[in-house]
Amino acid sequence: MYSIVYPLIICAVALGAAFLFRRLVMREPMGTERMVEIHTYIREGAYAFMIEEAKVFLFVMLGLSLFLLWLFGWEVGVAFLIGALFSGTAGFIGMDAATQANVRTANAARSGFNKALKVAFSGGSVMGLAVGGLALGGLCLVLLFFRDYFIPTSGSGNKVFISNIPIPFLGNVNLIKGAVIVSAYSMGASLVALFDRVGGGIYTKAADMGADLVGKVEAKIPEDDPRNPATIADNVGDNVGDVGGLGADLLESFVGAIISIIVMLLYLWVGARYAIESNLSDSEILKLLSCLDILNITEPNISDFNLWNLILLSVFIAAGGIIACLIGILFIRFNPGQNPQRILMNGKWVSAGFTILFAGIITYLFPTNMVPFYATALGIISGIAIGFLSEYFTSDHFSPVQRIAKGSQSGPAITVTSGLAVGMESTLFPVLILSAATIISYQLGGLIAVSFSAMGMLSFVVMTVSIDSYGPIADNASGITEMSGLGQDVRERTDRLDSVGNTTAAIGKGFAIGSAAFAALGLFAAYIWSAAGSAEEVRMPNIGLLNVDVGAFVIAGLFVGAMIPYVFSALLIRAVSSTADLMIVEIRRQFREKPGILKGKDVPDYRRCIGITSHAGLKKMFLPAILAIITPFLIGLIFGRWALAGVLVGTLLSCIQLAIQCANSGGAMDNAKKYIEQGHYGGKGSETHAAGVIGDTVGDPLKDTVGPSLDILVKLMCVTSLLFASLFPLKPIFIK
Amino acid sequence: MYSIVYPLIICAVALGAAFLFRRLVMREPMGTERMVEIHTYIREGAYAFMIEEAKVFLFVMLGLSLFLLWLFGWEVGVAFLIGALFSGTAGFIGMDAATQANVRTANAARSGFNKALKVAFSGGSVMGLAVGGLALGGLCLVLLFFRDYFIPTSGSGNKVFISNIPIPFLGNVNLIKGAVIVSAYSMGASLVALFDRVGGGIYTKAADMGADLVGKVEAKIPEDDPRNPATIADNVGDNVGDVGGLGADLLESFVGAIISIIVMLLYLWVGARYAIESNLSDSEILKLLSCLDILNITEPNISDFNLWNLILLSVFIAAGGIIACLIGILFIRFNPGQNPQRILMNGKWVSAGFTILFAGIITYLFPTNMVPFYATALGIISGIAIGFLSEYFTSDHFSPVQRIAKGSQSGPAITVTSGLAVGMESTLFPVLILSAATIISYQLGGLIAVSFSAMGMLSFVVMTVSIDSYGPIADNASGITEMSGLGQDVRERTDRLDSVGNTTAAIGKGFAIGSAAFAALGLFAAYIWSAAGSAEEVRMPNIGLLNVDVGAFVIAGLFVGAMIPYVFSALLIRAVSSTADLMIVEIRRQFREKPGILKGKDVPDYRRCIGITSHAGLKKMFLPAILAIITPFLIGLIFGRWALAGVLVGTLLSCIQLAIQCANSGGAMDNAKKYIEQGHYGGKGSETHAAGVIGDTVGDPLKDTVGPSLDILVKLMCVTSLLFASLFPLKPIFIK
Repeated sequence: MYSIVYPLIICAVALGAAFLFRRLVMREPMGTERMVEIHTYIREGAYAFMIEEAKVFLFVMLGLSLFLLWLFGWEVGVAFLIGALFSGTAGFIGMDAATQANVRTANAARSGFNKALKVAFSGGSVMGLAVGGLALGGLCLVLLFFRDYFIPTSGSGNKVFISNIPIPFLGNVNLIKGAVIVSAYSMGASLVALFDRVGGGIYTKAADMGADLVGKVEAKIPEDDPRNPATIADNVGDNVGDVGGLGADLLESFVGAIISIIVMLLYLWVGARYAIESNLSDSEILKLLSCLDILNITEPNISDFNLWNLILLSVFIAAGGIIACLIGILFIRFNPGQNPQRILMNGKWVSAGFTILFAGIITYLFPTNMVPFYATALGIISGIAIGFLSEYFTSDHFSPVQRIAKGSQSGPAITVTSGLAVGMESTLFPVLILSAATIISYQLGGLIAVSFSAMGMLSFVVMTVSIDSYGPIADNASGITEMSGLGQDVRERTDRLDSVGNTTAAIGKGFAIGSAAFAALGLFAAYIWSAAGSAEEVRMPNIGLLNVDVGAFVIAGLFVGAMIPYVFSALLIRAVSSTADLMIVEIRRQFREKPGILKGKDVPDYRRCIGITSHAGLKKMFLPAILAIITPFLIGLIFGRWALAGVLVGTLLSCIQLAIQCANSGGAMDNAKKYIEQGHYGGKGSETHAAGVIGDTVGDPLKDTVGPSLDILVKLMCVTSLLFASLFPLKPIFIK
Repeated sequence: MYSIVYPLIICAVALGAAFLFRRLVMREPMGTERMVEIHTYIREGAYAFMIEEAKVFLFVMLGLSLFLLWLFGWEVGVAFLIGALFSGTAGFIGMDAATQANVRTANAARSGFNKALKVAFSGGSVMGLAVGGLALGGLCLVLLFFRDYFIPTSGSGNKVFISNIPIPFLGNVNLIKGAVIVSAYSMGASLVALFDRVGGGIYTKAADMGADLVGKVEAKIPEDDPRNPATIADNVGDNVGDVGGLGADLLESFVGAIISIIVMLLYLWVGARYAIESNLSDSEILKLLSCLDILNITEPNISDFNLWNLILLSVFIAAGGIIACLIGILFIRFNPGQNPQRILMNGKWVSAGFTILFAGIITYLFPTNMVPFYATALGIISGIAIGFLSEYFTSDHFSPVQRIAKGSQSGPAITVTSGLAVGMESTLFPVLILSAATIISYQLGGLIAVSFSAMGMLSFVVMTVSIDSYGPIADNASGITEMSGLGQDVRERTDRLDSVGNTTAAIGKGFAIGSAAFAALGLFAAYIWSAAGSAEEVRMPNIGLLNVDVGAFVIAGLFVGAMIPYVFSALLIRAVSSTADLMIVEIRRQFREKPGILKGKDVPDYRRCIGITSHAGLKKMFLPAILAIITPFLIGLIFGRWALAGVLVGTLLSCIQLAIQCANSGGAMDNAKKYIEQGHYGGKGSETHAAGVIGDTVGDPLKDTVGPSLDILVKLMCVTSLLFASLFPLKPIFIK
């Protein structure tokens, strides 16, 4: 039964289901001519972005894969390309489905609420299933193609060279190359995620700000008015940033969590074998072997350590999660009269329950103890808890948001200050949950159990992405309804859909950050193993601060690492404002050169606006992207692998806090504004409302550009370090 | 020559000089009757705050010292009280002098600019000299009183109990108690600093916001108008927060840096003696002894390790710094026609130069190699560099501030967003300098050299505090000039004084954060030594992340530690707004009950407003203060000393980044507003200006309450951990 074919079949089933859901969506009619027209604009815009993105991809991905090919061999280059290709495809499928579902959701809302809910959720499910199926499917293909690199050969204690650069180290050349191959696959997926998330984040906010500042403020036309050349770009942005970006983010976390388990297993094998073959002291061997407790492997039967089966265990649990989510999706019944929020959440509970059940059965069937199951279940529960806690800080049912709204009576400065404070406060619970989950899983079975928990948190990724993608589809549907003038009752239905989407989006964002942090911790743990395992001495790695040779570099690394997310965030904010500036110039030009636009007689050139945000957004993200890839690479090469470990820890710590603060500050100020609009403290048009609007505008780039991009930053830095770990010297190159 | 009497004499000289400078200030006339009146109000307000503060002190300090007395013995309780008393006295002397100098500066400005500059700087020097003299003097007294505890006795390898709680550990009971005594002295100083800085920070911003929101917005009276009951509280706040707070902050850093050297020396001695007496392997002995390289002590002459002399070395270098600053202060000549900024900076250069010179001579005369001198000099240079770099991000001569001003044309949301981005960006250089200084000093001589660098950075603290205290005196003088209607030319002179003060304040804030980070790093290093040295095994401590027993707790500790500064900041922001609310209610009550106030016929009850901010500010800071003391204590007791080490590292990392961001975001937005007021982008009264004002108001609590308080948070947490280190178990209490 231990065959990679089974998970591959499950991935194929998931992709088949995605195809069926897409057909289900496509069968729905699109509605009036006006609706089709708007739909076409948005769709064209999304494609325009994807084409711009594809150009950048072609350049970067091919260049990087050639570099990897030269450095590590063709297998690594190919694995990287598969990762990039599959992740890119998932994003494409999801955005395509979202831009088809939005107009059909709006049309379905004309006949009833539940039908619209069903169409929107079906559209989201396409993205969810595509993410799960392609992420795991690609990994299975890599494992299948390069299976030989995951089977130990003899000669595990020899000095080997695995890269083109002659750095020798101890270990089994096969397995270490296997670790590099899966890391390259993960890095391919990460890089696409960076482009989707950062590029999408800059795109969506630059379009939003440009449209508002010229359209609403200068030309005095309402929001979403088709006369505004940037309106379509704004709507496209929702799809690009929220569907494509979030999907790519979670896909990357999912892949990262699984491959961190695989890499640790490979190095555990190398270390254990080395310990037995070499003349280490008893205590050192025991120390190494104690890490294998989780797998119920003790000294006598170390040779029975069937590496391939244990690798398959993680893949099987992930595949079980996909099936569990498919059950959850099919379970959802859109009965009239039921709370729509409840409907979606019930689907989530069912998926989570089945994921736990399947993980238990699979672990039981594999030749190991039950620790992987316990760790996975712990991860699932923690992930759900983190998601729900972020609702407390961003929902207008609770005091944090109401406090911001109340403070807005004293002016915008108080709105922003208390909004920032709420974001800072909101770091408390997610961090405590993450810490508790880390401690418990570590006690269960060391760092590898932490990676199992991370994978658990992400194992029902299909359901999470499906629900999260529903949000922007409903948002777009609401916009299309308004632009097409479909009447009050339709509008009310789509508004209700949208408001459910806002809640699920808040939960989804909290979950994305928490799981990204956990996945990054798993990748970091794999990096530590990898760095230690390929060291001259295969021992328990010691990155103690007082190590005479590297201590200062670890401390300095921590300082620098903690600083990187701040500078990265500043670069993103600057990228958003400079792209918005370009947009403003273009909108003014169109209004000036074609005065008919404002009179409704001329059609504005939407494509040009879309082209500008697409092009500039992708170009402006180069500097942050380079920071994320080059920094760990250069620090590792110059200052050595332990200094880099310090950098990764520092970055992880700052990213978690900053990402939570940005996401929740932004979310809380957004909902405080909506709370005021409901009629509190003066309602729409009051001074309080004006303060709320300013707070919302400050929060927007924080929550939609900075926060989500930080998720990617830390994962990409960890996976880059993992991939190149074996190249980095033990000490800074200039010491001795 | 190795006698504690010499530094004590130098401290007495510094205090004598402070007394003379105060007489110099007092000899100046106070000016018109109106000026005397305003002066009396501000002075009464400052005293009202100090009385409120003294009540809290009495309660907290006596309670804590009784606890320490019970736990560790009377010597520790006494040392703690001396620390608290001397630090409190320094704050009292400084605020007293500042409230005397402000009105005399205003009066001196009537006859000429340079005379006013001289009076203001003389007032600042009182604080500077009091800080230096009392901080080092108190430490010398503690060393003198309890000298026996710094002289090793025999029996260094025995199990001893140093606290009332029966936790035995290896070591020389005398020396370890010595370490606890100096830590208690430092903690006393830290706690006062927390009260001054956090209480002062809440006080000053709550008064400011209350005065503005009712006075300017509701009653439409101008700023600093004597009819506003909160005006005096606002002016008192400048003295409380900027004179008292900054002085206490730097005093604490100064003390912390010196005692971290002393504690490390004590534990080095314990470790080295233990290594020689016990049957450790050669490599382990060498590892321990390698740390002694800095002191040029090798195995043969370990018994010559004259602990007392080496302790005196650090005290002598600090005393040398005080003398160097006195030379610098006396060197300053207020020649007419010279750039006032240049005059003050020249004094700083002279002080820094003499400090380096004296450190070289002292190190040469002591029985050690020159490493302590190199490390001290490195610290001095890094400190100056960090201070100057913060000017780049907060001065309107450079692009960051100008960019914020330009962005303000698009509304307040852009002001705030780009202000936050500038703060984030500004973390780059200070962190790089800190990292480089850490690496270089570590390479010179391990962690103890890092502490010498920290002490170096703070060794010319007298000059730094003198210049920094000049700022708020000039600010107050400017306010008094306006309130007393002294005419245009006097106003211009005090404005020029004030603008010089703004620049020195920006440099001072950057320096305070950088040196606090470095001092905290020194304290953390001492904690690590202390935790390792009092462990069952006296070996090189290993807080490696993969240590099977404590690894997960270190990781979780890092997460939690990095989160604490965010929650702490959120609490502070909430404390400011709720205190401001109380203030608003009181101002409204006065206007309502005494309608004569607004007509200028009735005198408002200034004292009541002052009482409210004093009382509420000090009360509201209890929760953050408890967080800072109780958290490390409880985490250490429950989760053990290595988990706490993780917490301290996490807190240090977040504090550095957040403190720099808050200080520079606030400073940049403040100066962007002033840049607009100079006539750029529409000047005063324009929409751009309104946006700038909102940005300034957002930045205010960040730069004056949150940023500075974070400096204290990290130091207080480190010193608390250091004090109680020996009580904490090696592993979490619930493990095995």
